[in-house]
Amino acid sequence: MKIELEKVLPQDIERRSMEIIARELGDRRLEEENADVIKRVIHTTADFDYAENLIFSPGAVERGRAALRAGCHIVTDTQMAKAGINKGRLARLGGEVHCFMSDEDVAKSAKEHGTTRAAASMDKALSLPGPIIYAIGNAPTALVSLYEQMEEGLVRPALVIGVPVGFVNVIPAKELMLGASVPYIVARGRKGGSNVAAAICNALLYGIGER
Amino acid sequence: MKIELEKVLPQDIERRSMEIIARELGDRRLEEENADVIKRVIHTTADFDYAENLIFSPGAVERGRAALRAGCHIVTDTQMAKAGINKGRLARLGGEVHCFMSDEDVAKSAKEHGTTRAAASMDKALSLPGPIIYAIGNAPTALVSLYEQMEEGLVRPALVIGVPVGFVNVIPAKELMLGASVPYIVARGRKGGSNVAAAICNALLYGIGER
Repeated sequence: MKIELEKVLPQDIERRSMEIIARELGDRRLEEENADVIKRVIHTTADFDYAENLIFSPGAVERGRAALRAGCHIVTDTQMAKAGINKGRLARLGGEVHCFMSDEDVAKSAKEHGTTRAAASMDKALSLPGPIIYAIGNAPTALVSLYEQMEEGLVRPALVIGVPVGFVNVIPAKELMLGASVPYIVARGRKGGSNVAAAICNALLYGIGER
Repeated sequence: MKIELEKVLPQDIERRSMEIIARELGDRRLEEENADVIKRVIHTTADFDYAENLIFSPGAVERGRAALRAGCHIVTDTQMAKAGINKGRLARLGGEVHCFMSDEDVAKSAKEHGTTRAAASMDKALSLPGPIIYAIGNAPTALVSLYEQMEEGLVRPALVIGVPVGFVNVIPAKELMLGASVPYIVARGRKGGSNVAAAICNALLYGIGER
C-alpha cells in the first residue's frame, strides 16, 4: 500500500503542526496572552473545542510563568500528567512535579475518610512549601478538595489548572473553581485530561524559554 | 459559592460514569466485542467522537486479550501512556510495558538517521522477544516505521493500537495501518493520544479480569 506522507524533518514537525492549527483556527480570535496555551492543548488533542472551552482568569498565564520562574513546584493528580510535564525544564527553574496518588499513606487516608485518593492527595500536598501550581487532569474530587482548602485559608495556589475529565461532578467542580479568587486555567465542560494538564504546564514552561 | 455535587461513593464513580456514557450513547449501536474499549476511551476523553472513530480489525479485542493472557509485552511511544497503563495487572499476567523514547541510544540513532526518536524506538523494540502489542499514542512516525518493519517481515505484532494524535502525517499513517494484515485498533482521523492508547490497553486488561 502506498500513501502520501508529507516530508517534514523531525525538528520541524511541531512548527508545521502549529502552522496547521493557526490556519484552521482561521479568523477565530484567541486572546494573545492565552494563545500559546490554547494552541498547545489543540496540538496535544487535535480537538478544536479547546479554543472555546479553556477559560483563563485575567493574567493567569503570566502569573503561572512568574511562579515557575521563581521555582514554583507543581502538584498533579495523575502519574500520566507527571510523566508528560517537561521535568528537565522545570528543574532548571528550580521546580519539581509531585503526584501523591500512588502513595500508601494517601490510599490509607482515603479509605479511612471514605474519600478518593485524589482528594486525599490534595491534603498531603498541604505539607509542601508553597506557592504551588496545581494541575488537576483527572479527578474532580481533587479540584473540590482544593477549593475547600482555599475557602478554609489553608492554601493559596499560584495557579490552578483545572482540567479534570469525565461524567460525575466534573462540570460542577470546574464551575466552582471558576468562582474562585485565584489565578486559574479551566477547561469548561466535561473534557480535559492528564494530557491536557501536562500540555498546559508545558506551554507555560516553553513560553519562559522563549524570552 | 454553592454548587450541586452528585453524591457518589469513590468506588462507584467509574460505574456511574459508564452508566452515563451508555445512556448518552442512546441508540447508537456499538459492536458488542468492541464496546468495552470504546466506552473506556470515551470515559478517558469525554469525547463521543470515539464512538465513530475507533476502527477494529475483526477479532482485534479478543486477539489482544489472548496475547495479554499469554504474557505479551506492550511497547509504547510515550512515557505518558506507560504511566497510564495498569502495570500491576499486566505484571500479574506476565507482561511488562516498554518505552524507549528517553533512551540515549535511541536519541543517538534518531540523530544519525535523521529520523524521529519514535521511529528509532521502534527499531529498538525489534530486540524484544515477540509477539508484542504496540500502543502508539503520539508519533505517526512510529506507526509508519512499524508498518515498514511488518512489510519487511521483521516483526509480526500481536496487536497494533494505532492512535497517534496530531496534524502532520497522522491521518496517512493510520490509513496505512488500516490496510495492514495484523490485528489493529485505530483511531481514524487526527484524534488520539497517549491517554487513549493507555485507555485501550486498560480496557483489554480489565476485560480479562472480569472473566
